[in-house]
Amino acid sequence: MKEKAVIIGGGLSGSLLAICLAKRGLEVELYERRSDMRTTIAEGGRSINLALSTRGIEALKKVGLADQVLNDAIPMTGRQMHSKIGELTNQPYGTDGQYINSVSRAGLNLKLVQLAGEYPNVKMFFNCKCTDANLKNNSATIITSDGAEIQVSGDIMFGTDGAFSAIRSEMQKTNRFNYSQTYENYGYKELEIVPGKNGSFQIDQNALHIWPRGEFMMIALPNLEGSFTCTLFLGYEGAQSFANLKDEASILEFFNTYFADAVPMMPNLVKDFMENPIGNLVTVRCNPWVINRFALVGDAAHAIIPFYGQGMNCSFEDVKDLDDLIEQHYPNWDVILDEYQKARIVNANAIADLACKNFVEMRDLVGRPEFMKFKHVEHELCDLYPEHFQSQYELVTFNTTPYSYAQSQGGKNEALIYSLIEQGLDTDLENRDIIIPLIQKYKQ
Amino acid sequence: MKEKAVIIGGGLSGSLLAICLAKRGLEVELYERRSDMRTTIAEGGRSINLALSTRGIEALKKVGLADQVLNDAIPMTGRQMHSKIGELTNQPYGTDGQYINSVSRAGLNLKLVQLAGEYPNVKMFFNCKCTDANLKNNSATIITSDGAEIQVSGDIMFGTDGAFSAIRSEMQKTNRFNYSQTYENYGYKELEIVPGKNGSFQIDQNALHIWPRGEFMMIALPNLEGSFTCTLFLGYEGAQSFANLKDEASILEFFNTYFADAVPMMPNLVKDFMENPIGNLVTVRCNPWVINRFALVGDAAHAIIPFYGQGMNCSFEDVKDLDDLIEQHYPNWDVILDEYQKARIVNANAIADLACKNFVEMRDLVGRPEFMKFKHVEHELCDLYPEHFQSQYELVTFNTTPYSYAQSQGGKNEALIYSLIEQGLDTDLENRDIIIPLIQKYKQ
Repeated sequence: MKEKAVIIGGGLSGSLLAICLAKRGLEVELYERRSDMRTTIAEGGRSINLALSTRGIEALKKVGLADQVLNDAIPMTGRQMHSKIGELTNQPYGTDGQYINSVSRAGLNLKLVQLAGEYPNVKMFFNCKCTDANLKNNSATIITSDGAEIQVSGDIMFGTDGAFSAIRSEMQKTNRFNYSQTYENYGYKELEIVPGKNGSFQIDQNALHIWPRGEFMMIALPNLEGSFTCTLFLGYEGAQSFANLKDEASILEFFNTYFADAVPMMPNLVKDFMENPIGNLVTVRCNPWVINRFALVGDAAHAIIPFYGQGMNCSFEDVKDLDDLIEQHYPNWDVILDEYQKARIVNANAIADLACKNFVEMRDLVGRPEFMKFKHVEHELCDLYPEHFQSQYELVTFNTTPYSYAQSQGGKNEALIYSLIEQGLDTDLENRDIIIPLIQKYKQ
Repeated sequence: MKEKAVIIGGGLSGSLLAICLAKRGLEVELYERRSDMRTTIAEGGRSINLALSTRGIEALKKVGLADQVLNDAIPMTGRQMHSKIGELTNQPYGTDGQYINSVSRAGLNLKLVQLAGEYPNVKMFFNCKCTDANLKNNSATIITSDGAEIQVSGDIMFGTDGAFSAIRSEMQKTNRFNYSQTYENYGYKELEIVPGKNGSFQIDQNALHIWPRGEFMMIALPNLEGSFTCTLFLGYEGAQSFANLKDEASILEFFNTYFADAVPMMPNLVKDFMENPIGNLVTVRCNPWVINRFALVGDAAHAIIPFYGQGMNCSFEDVKDLDDLIEQHYPNWDVILDEYQKARIVNANAIADLACKNFVEMRDLVGRPEFMKFKHVEHELCDLYPEHFQSQYELVTFNTTPYSYAQSQGGKNEALIYSLIEQGLDTDLENRDIIIPLIQKYKQ
C-alpha cells in the first residue's frame, strides 16, 4: 500500500511540495483555505510580484517548471535608486549581467497548482480551513467548504499553512517548543505605477527601484503588462507615518515631497492608498520544525521580512532539500525529517537575520555616499577576483551555498572592504599581489 | 460606584496585587486555578524555596508584610561552592554582611492569600480555571469548581496567571503582538538534603550552595526545619544527562562521582530522583503587556530562568511600580497602564538576559580560578570604594535601580576589572589615586 501524505496549505510551498511527493509516488492530499485559483479570479486583483532567484529556480527545475516560470518573468539586473529630486543611481546585483526575476505571485502559484493537479495521485481540496491538529495521531481538523468538520490523516503530515500556521500553533502547545514572532514598527502598503503608452514601462523595466528615505522607503518591481507594483514601507507612528496619512491632502503632500518623480505615474495613488490595507512585517522563528510525523515547511516554519527577496526562495529550498532527503532515505521518515530540520533551521535563522539587516540597507544606506563607495569596492572585487571573492548578495542570491555560510562570509567581507578603504587601497584594487593575500586573510 | 478589578491567577503576583488594589479601595475579584491553600495541604508536599531580596522586600513593605515574611526566612550571605572532592570556597554576595533570604514559596503565598482575604473588598474564587479572554469587552471565561463556564468582567483586568498565561495566549492572537518562548536545553529536578540531628543544618545554613560542574550543577537553599532543597540542573540529552539517569545504579554512580559530599545527606536521593518530575527552564518575553484594559503582571509577562534569583523579585517589583502609578494617576488607567509597560518591559528583558548569563556563571565560571580572581577584585572594589563602585550583583539584588541600568553597568564593570587585572593593578587596589580615576573612566 502506498503511503499517504497530507499537506495543509496550498500556497507556493504546499503546491510545490505536492508535486515533489507525487513524483515520488506518494498519495497526496492537499487542503487549502482559499478557493481554487484555477477556476476563480484572484482575490483583490492587485498584482503582487516576488523576486525569484537561484535557490527558487533550482527547486522549480526539479519539477520541470523553471523554464515556464522564467518565460513569464522580468529580469532585474540591479537596484535603481531614486533620490528626492529624481536623480537616478544604479547598483548592479552581480557581475556578468546576473539578475533576479520579477514574477507574479498569483501566476506562479497557479502554475504550481495546475501541475499538481495533473498528477492522478494528488487530490486537492479548496475552501478547506485547518483549525486544529492532533500531533500524536497524525491527524488534522478541517472545516470544509460546506461547513462540515472532518478529520484528515496521513502517514506523514506537512504544515505549509503560512506565517500564521494552525499546525505550528498546535506545536506551540507542546513541551519545550521554542517560538518567536517579532513585528517591525513598520507597515507596508501596495500601490501602482501604471503602464505608459501601449503597455510600455515608464521607468527602467530591468531594475528593482528604490526610493530610500532613511526612515522609510518605497520600492517598485516590474510586471509583464508594463506596470510596476510599488510598496511603501513606513512607520505606524511618528512624524512621517501611516498615522499621519489619513486624507487626500496629507497623502499627496507626502508623496509630492518624497516621491515626486513617481507621483505622475501613479494616477490611482490616493484611491489605492485609502483602500489598500496596511500589511505587517513579521519574523517568525521556531524550533523544532518536526514533531512526530508533522513537519513545517516554508513560511509556517520561518516567516521572514521581504528585504532580501528570499522568502519564497528559502521556502522553495526547504522543499528541494526535503525532496533530496526523501530521495536518499525514503521510507525512513525519522531520518528524513530529522536531517531536514537540522539542515534548514540554522539557515532559516540566518536569512531572517540578513533580511532584517537589509531593511536598513535599502531604506537608508543605499542613498549614502560612503555606502555607495563600499558597494563599488565590493563590486570591483567580485569583478576582478571572481575565483577569490564573492559578495554576500551573490552568495545569497546567485548560489545555493547555505545561508549561514553567506551570513558569516558577509561579515568577513565587510571587515575586508572597510580595511581596504581605510588603507586607501580602494584605488589600487587591480594590484593582485596586494589584494589577493588580503582577501585570503579576511576569509579565515 | 467603585471600580472593579478582576485578577486572573492567585499566585505570588496575583495575591500581592489583590492586596494593593484592595488598599486603594477597588472591588477585587481574584480567580485561581488551584485550591485554596488556606484550607488544603500544598500539592506534592515538597518544599520549594525562593531567594527574596531588596526589590521583593520593598514591595512587601507596601502591604506591611515584609517583617512577617523575613521572620520566617533564612539569610544567605553568599555562595558556597563545593568542589568535586568536597573542598569549600565562599563568595560573599555583598559587603557588610548583605544577604538574600531563603523563603518558602508556599509559605509566602499563603501569607499573601491570608492577608488578601482579610479585605472585605477582595473576593477570591479557587479551583477556577481561566480558559479564554475577550480583550475587547473586558471579560474572561472561567470554568468554576463545579464545572460551570462563566464570564467574569471588570473595569480593569489583570493576567497574573503565570508563564503559561491564558490571558497572554489571547493577546498573542492580536495584531502585532511580539512574543517569544525560549527553552534551555536543560531540565531541573528537585531533591533534598535532610536535617541533621535535632533539626540541625548539615551544611552552612547561611549560604546558597553550589556544586558547579561545568556543563551542569546542583544548588541547595536552606529551609527553616534544617533541610535544604536541592535542585539539579542537567541537560536532557548527552553524556551526562537526564536521558542517561534512568535507574538506581546510574543515578548513584552519577551522584557519587560528581556530588560525593552531598550523597550521605540525601537518603531519599534515588526515590526522589525517580519520582520527582523534570522541570523545564523557559524564558518568555512579550510586548505589549497591555491591550485595552487587560494588563499582564509577573511571570505571565516575563517568565525568566531562576539563575539570578530574581523571578519573584521582578514580579513583585511589577506590582509595586504599578501600585505607585495607581497612586499617582488613578483613575486614569490609560496613563497608568501605558507608563507601567513602558517602565517594566525594558527591565524585564534586562533581567531575563542577566539570568541567562548567570546560568553559565553558576554552573561553570564559579569553579574556575580566573573567575575567582575576577570576583575577588570586584569584591575589593565594592569594599574599598563603596561610593564609586557597585557590582552588578549588588545593583540587581540589594538595590531598586532599574535592571536595565544594572545590565549596562555590569558590562562596564567587567571591562574595568579585566583591565585592572591585565595591567597588574589587582595587587594595588588600595591606591586611590590610580583606581578612582579608572573607575570613573569606565563608568562613562
